Amino acid sequence: MSRTDYDVFGLGDFTLRCGLTLRDAQLAYKTYGRLNDARDNAIVYPTWYSGRHWENEWLIGDGMALDPSRYFIIVTNMLGNGLSSSPSNTPPPFDRARFPDIAVLDNVTAQHQLVTERFGIERLVAVTGWSMGAGQTYQWAVSFPEMVPRILPFCGSARTSEHNIVFLEGVKGALTADCAWKHGWYTEQPWTGLRAMARVYAGWGFSQAFYWDQVYRELGHTSLEDFLVDFWEGFFLDERDANNLLTMLSTWQRGDIGLTPGVDGDTEAALRSITAKAIVMPGEKDLYFPPEDNAWEVERMPNAELRVIPGVWGHFAGGGQNPVDTAFIDAGLKELLAAPA
Amino acid sequence: MSRTDYDVFGLGDFTLRCGLTLRDAQLAYKTYGRLNDARDNAIVYPTWYSGRHWENEWLIGDGMALDPSRYFIIVTNMLGNGLSSSPSNTPPPFDRARFPDIAVLDNVTAQHQLVTERFGIERLVAVTGWSMGAGQTYQWAVSFPEMVPRILPFCGSARTSEHNIVFLEGVKGALTADCAWKHGWYTEQPWTGLRAMARVYAGWGFSQAFYWDQVYRELGHTSLEDFLVDFWEGFFLDERDANNLLTMLSTWQRGDIGLTPGVDGDTEAALRSITAKAIVMPGEKDLYFPPEDNAWEVERMPNAELRVIPGVWGHFAGGGQNPVDTAFIDAGLKELLAAPA
Repeated sequence: MSRTDYDVFGLGDFTLRCGLTLRDAQLAYKTYGRLNDARDNAIVYPTWYSGRHWENEWLIGDGMALDPSRYFIIVTNMLGNGLSSSPSNTPPPFDRARFPDIAVLDNVTAQHQLVTERFGIERLVAVTGWSMGAGQTYQWAVSFPEMVPRILPFCGSARTSEHNIVFLEGVKGALTADCAWKHGWYTEQPWTGLRAMARVYAGWGFSQAFYWDQVYRELGHTSLEDFLVDFWEGFFLDERDANNLLTMLSTWQRGDIGLTPGVDGDTEAALRSITAKAIVMPGEKDLYFPPEDNAWEVERMPNAELRVIPGVWGHFAGGGQNPVDTAFIDAGLKELLAAPA
Repeated sequence: MSRTDYDVFGLGDFTLRCGLTLRDAQLAYKTYGRLNDARDNAIVYPTWYSGRHWENEWLIGDGMALDPSRYFIIVTNMLGNGLSSSPSNTPPPFDRARFPDIAVLDNVTAQHQLVTERFGIERLVAVTGWSMGAGQTYQWAVSFPEMVPRILPFCGSARTSEHNIVFLEGVKGALTADCAWKHGWYTEQPWTGLRAMARVYAGWGFSQAFYWDQVYRELGHTSLEDFLVDFWEGFFLDERDANNLLTMLSTWQRGDIGLTPGVDGDTEAALRSITAKAIVMPGEKDLYFPPEDNAWEVERMPNAELRVIPGVWGHFAGGGQNPVDTAFIDAGLKELLAAPA
């Protein structure tokens, strides 16, 4: 990766849920603002599928809810994203196709070590995140309820639905259909597969209405094909790595707070255990995290409100490209952060 | 193809919209029932993406709207489906990867030749079809208004929307990412690509709610993966051919009644020209032919009603696997056929 403006926390020998141990595991992160003396102004804001910390920055800024002049915002890079321990940066023998399965819980366990061991934080102000970042947000609330008084997961879910798993099977199928992938032992990226994956993703990331209205023109794209190549293929060619993408995809497919130790597979029990004040924000037309799924969750959460992000942007309502949706999410975050907890 | 229970109409030297001429082109079809002496009891019922005539038979039967004891039902196989002229069965030099682009209009022109030249039919009772069959239905109504008093397109559209085009780009990307495809010059089917394509399709064919409710169990599938392999991979391995699938996919992507000669690209004008009495039936949760798109069409059609097929089956509401949806479509067809026109 070309950027070096971040820190790394050494997790040591980090034993994963799958039973393997990543030696000298690394959690890459970046902080915004200053941890106060009471160590009680921290917000954790994990990344999403393929995202890097700088791709979270659109929701951070002076005058915004995530205001660095007030809060200490910790953006954690997901395991597998190429900055934290990943197939692409782990030395043999756990490198590349042999990189182990990573659970959502592994990510949150690593983040918890960072927050408590490096920063000595005992209680957070909130956790928030988009998409897989939302999944990590739920996991924080279930694993460490005493530390997490507030959550705002947006465009994500506590358990990956079967339809969402199928959508990801299509993404994976397209990437791995490329013979150049070589079951992960490629010496050069499987470019054809990455571009095919991008085109599969393109149909899912934004809503039918987004395309009908050609809203991609607002993003500066001059035709549908221009959007597919420049936005979507560009997205998956931007220093991404096939094995990294497959690692994170596997994490996503198996996401389920019901897999938390002690919960015994009972996702509904895990939802009922979330004491944090929650504002859950799906995108109105999100095709793989539809509002219905969050509604089902909120019904089971004791202190949660469902607040749908209106409009046609689908999953990318939470992607930071649309100022209207960003303002909507920011307003929700402001309200949540102002609420007693 | 293993089945031989159908007829073939020779189209002769058939000049396509793309400007190429298929020599000795073939239109495969099957008829159900008997053409009466007045030749006024015929219904055309074209196939859909990858479908063959026998896969339309679920909507034909004694006591059903499409009753062979009353109507002469002509099921036409789409060009490219492996029975009519296709990459897989056309001799050189127009074989395989060199098979020309086929327009929806080409299909309807061929069908019109069959109906008028072989059967001497001057006026049909109706045209109906699912998905791309619906697209052909619209095209019939625009190209031959004097012949088509009634149409019932279900789970399809008069113009392929941009989102639908993108969905198909993902399907195509997955299939063609397989190096074994060899740009169409394969000697063996690109099995990995076909299976990848199937997994992409799986997320689109049925709704999110279908998967949430695990309705695939009603179809005899014992798990999500069982459904993906047995239903979806099986679907695209069932005597399908990669070049054939790509030919039909291209037909689909470019579907637009506005491309009819004389209409000058004006899809709305083409819709306004449809004098046929129409019942337009989208699936409530169809992910690539959403009801909104049909509503837009019906607003512009002078004699049309929008009637949404309720439920969670998505696009496959029109696939014949669900008796409830089949009964709904059949009832609409009965009503349409009973109406004066």
